[in-house]
Amino acid sequence: MLEITSAQNPRLKAAHKLKDRRERDKTGLFVIEGFREISRAKSIEIETLFICPELFLGSNEGALIQSTNVETLKLSPALFKKLSFRDRPDGLFAVGKKPESQLPKLSNNPFLVIAQAIEKPGNLGSILRSCDAAGVDGCIVADRCTDIYNPNVVRASVGTLFTVPTTEMPSDELLPWLKKNNIQIVATTPDTDLEFTHADLTGPVAIAVGTEQLGLSDAWLSQADIKVRIPMLGEADSLNVAAATTLMLYEVLRQR
Amino acid sequence: MLEITSAQNPRLKAAHKLKDRRERDKTGLFVIEGFREISRAKSIEIETLFICPELFLGSNEGALIQSTNVETLKLSPALFKKLSFRDRPDGLFAVGKKPESQLPKLSNNPFLVIAQAIEKPGNLGSILRSCDAAGVDGCIVADRCTDIYNPNVVRASVGTLFTVPTTEMPSDELLPWLKKNNIQIVATTPDTDLEFTHADLTGPVAIAVGTEQLGLSDAWLSQADIKVRIPMLGEADSLNVAAATTLMLYEVLRQR
Repeated sequence: MLEITSAQNPRLKAAHKLKDRRERDKTGLFVIEGFREISRAKSIEIETLFICPELFLGSNEGALIQSTNVETLKLSPALFKKLSFRDRPDGLFAVGKKPESQLPKLSNNPFLVIAQAIEKPGNLGSILRSCDAAGVDGCIVADRCTDIYNPNVVRASVGTLFTVPTTEMPSDELLPWLKKNNIQIVATTPDTDLEFTHADLTGPVAIAVGTEQLGLSDAWLSQADIKVRIPMLGEADSLNVAAATTLMLYEVLRQR
Repeated sequence: MLEITSAQNPRLKAAHKLKDRRERDKTGLFVIEGFREISRAKSIEIETLFICPELFLGSNEGALIQSTNVETLKLSPALFKKLSFRDRPDGLFAVGKKPESQLPKLSNNPFLVIAQAIEKPGNLGSILRSCDAAGVDGCIVADRCTDIYNPNVVRASVGTLFTVPTTEMPSDELLPWLKKNNIQIVATTPDTDLEFTHADLTGPVAIAVGTEQLGLSDAWLSQADIKVRIPMLGEADSLNVAAATTLMLYEVLRQR
């Protein structure tokens, strides 16, 4: 195993630069940090793995390192902490290749999430975690705003970015694709009387949610097959977007 | 209206220091930034209001400023951006007094949220937003970890920190108080067969959720009256804590 001892090491510097979106776009590489995240990244081609055994939290790191089957570079705790994007690094930091973007395979009764132009990596990560839990066919990010390979998406998703088929697509391609596949677009909006628990969500559905600030765009609202609202009994007029998405996904599960 | 023109102004420096928890604890003051947040802080005694009209986004700022009825200090955009805790400040930054901690008033059919030792301000803020929307009697933070007056809690809650009766209390005082008031403790945990949609949540309930890393402590799990699980169909073993809380709250609403 190679050991890196200088902060000026070019591979270390290249990996740290992947914090920057332009660098990820340019190289096609991204960062997967943490034991659970790397464990779930079975679908990803890992290129390099930086480790720091002094920072390991468990006892299964050895098996995980072997399973990735790539070159492993060892760092001191001080160097690893410089490389890490986290407050409490756990000694595992992988560089992986972004997979090719492809539309999710549809099940017999399609169940999709459309996340339009989500801004905050934490929200997108939390949405993916709920997508994994609810067993959706896939999550399609329409009109990308936050990069799905942002390290904070990987982290907030706890690696479910790799278990949920996830891709990006412009709305003007995605809308006709959904129509062609007879998938009902379900839009959450305050401008309807139909409560989400009263809508029939048992058929093929795409749950569409919009940006934190403005909600879904007019294109999505006007093409929605079902518009539902989430009851709001307090002073605020909306929920956090990931919370709202989770409610919708589990309502589909409950009805099915 | 006073205008501050120096970054060395002591009132400006004192306000900026409130980013730091120790400073908030010492002074009993905290920051409420943003139009919606300040609008919802009717229950809070505002001490100072910093404004920057060039950064206002809407046209109702004047009325809001008048309604706070406190000394207003004007800043240039450059100074305001230095003061602000946000990426996109909207020209309104208030310093308020932390209210006295008190237990929420119970309705005829009590409905509470217990958030144990939540670490991330964004999660606590998102939980409060859902508490507001679901009309709970209050949210009690057991064994505080993140400070409820952290500026990021105020922001992520979009000011619902002020519309939801919120307080902090150690678990060993809170547990007997709930028992005394005949409120059923509902714990969410993977270690049960009862799905949350099958439990009877129509009576007086306190929905208890635990830390992001470890879930609820043994004290809460052992004293819970009802243990429920949220179905997890994917690879991950839990949802984001705010997403899970939202599901539980809306299930109570649906059943009631």
